[in-house]
Amino acid sequence: MNLKKIISNICSKKSFLCVGLDPVLDLMPKHLLKEDDPVFQFNKHIIDATKDLCVAYKPNLAFYEKLGPLGIKSLKKTIDYIPEDHFVIADAKRSDIFNSAKMYADTFYDYFGCDAVTVSPYMGVDGVKPFLRKNKWVILLIATSNDSAFEVQNTITQSGDPFYLDLVNKSLKWSDSNNTMFVVGATRQLELSLVRKKAPNHFFLVPGVGAQGGDLKTVCNNAMNDTCGVLINMSRSIIYADKSKDFYKYSREICLNTQIQMEGILKRKKII
Amino acid sequence: MNLKKIISNICSKKSFLCVGLDPVLDLMPKHLLKEDDPVFQFNKHIIDATKDLCVAYKPNLAFYEKLGPLGIKSLKKTIDYIPEDHFVIADAKRSDIFNSAKMYADTFYDYFGCDAVTVSPYMGVDGVKPFLRKNKWVILLIATSNDSAFEVQNTITQSGDPFYLDLVNKSLKWSDSNNTMFVVGATRQLELSLVRKKAPNHFFLVPGVGAQGGDLKTVCNNAMNDTCGVLINMSRSIIYADKSKDFYKYSREICLNTQIQMEGILKRKKII
Repeated sequence: MNLKKIISNICSKKSFLCVGLDPVLDLMPKHLLKEDDPVFQFNKHIIDATKDLCVAYKPNLAFYEKLGPLGIKSLKKTIDYIPEDHFVIADAKRSDIFNSAKMYADTFYDYFGCDAVTVSPYMGVDGVKPFLRKNKWVILLIATSNDSAFEVQNTITQSGDPFYLDLVNKSLKWSDSNNTMFVVGATRQLELSLVRKKAPNHFFLVPGVGAQGGDLKTVCNNAMNDTCGVLINMSRSIIYADKSKDFYKYSREICLNTQIQMEGILKRKKII
Repeated sequence: MNLKKIISNICSKKSFLCVGLDPVLDLMPKHLLKEDDPVFQFNKHIIDATKDLCVAYKPNLAFYEKLGPLGIKSLKKTIDYIPEDHFVIADAKRSDIFNSAKMYADTFYDYFGCDAVTVSPYMGVDGVKPFLRKNKWVILLIATSNDSAFEVQNTITQSGDPFYLDLVNKSLKWSDSNNTMFVVGATRQLELSLVRKKAPNHFFLVPGVGAQGGDLKTVCNNAMNDTCGVLINMSRSIIYADKSKDFYKYSREICLNTQIQMEGILKRKKII
């Protein structure tokens, strides 16, 4: 999917919501556990209930790999089920030497059919390049939403910049805003605004709104640009909104509330 | 596997060789492609031919994930086939928030039964902690063997240390030499000696000898300590030594030559 299509989806759906598909058997409604493929059935209900309200889905590989070969099958079925016009992000946080990173790119793009992969920047451009293909996206970890991120990512470098900003500078030489996005957590407001200054045109994937406590409006104030420029990911607060047979209705409700908020923000920012 | 057992295996086998199990269908001897599970058959031949000459095996997940659910099955069969006294490293280079990193740890330790996982340090201790279990090992990426590693990892920090050394300092607070090793490439001789100064007791996993051009003796001079302290990984130069039906005999020959060299080094260093 190219940048133009991502932006046009945001404008037509009046939403920049990404739903994280992180299935955990213990947290699912119990009736689904009797199904042949509970993980797929759970995801299918969530997708059906939310697809008109979000522009992207983001399965985190950790949740599928834990289930062995069956988990990989469930993920493949899930991605095949996601409608064509949704942006699909493999949240894999991979990094490797060129040769092996190429294998991962083949896996996520060719086998699963994803549009984007989250990539850890620690091995440099060798680990990034194989993921740069036409209409495919590297989403580089820059300032993550977890508590201990700060300790490593905000190490001050000789230039005076924190390490994560130095990485943004470097990555601007590796690729551009047509094939690269940045992960910046909703709990990292200063980082959101500083990365936005360095990279005015890049999209950010922003986790941490919802269960992790980040605030949607503050994120938008600090990080939006005139083409929107942010995808807000919410996982647990949507998919585990309820454990009843009608769980997906509660998921839809959370998504709808979020979409309405997003529509307001897009209008106030004159993006739609 | 605990540190004592790793060291005793090195002393009894007179080897600190780790064989990388990175199967690629196109590079395998053709007769194997007719088998039901060519990847497992290839690995089985390599393991049978090398197990008395090495102390560890390191499958890189990228090579198995590319093959979908069948690749995961082949990897599980391979790890089950590796003899108990070998140290098994999942070369996965994972990193995630605590919650998801815990899922990966469950996958590699509980599902696959590995002893160790390579972990990317960029998300800080949150991404490392879930991998710290009794008799299990985090192998932290510090100075990798690829060309572009230098650009990111050797960024000079405010303290004057390069970023990778700063990370070593940080990780010494997260864990110790009984549950953590460091990845330092054979192509990074300065880094090998500087990390050794900071971490006199830690084991290093050293890729890059063989196909990537690193030199065994120089690595040992810069990085060994009095309990050996290094595991040398070789993948392509061993497993793709030949493409005939007898390919594993050529793999064994390379391993044997390496083991003889290692025995000489262990004796000169008075470790055995």
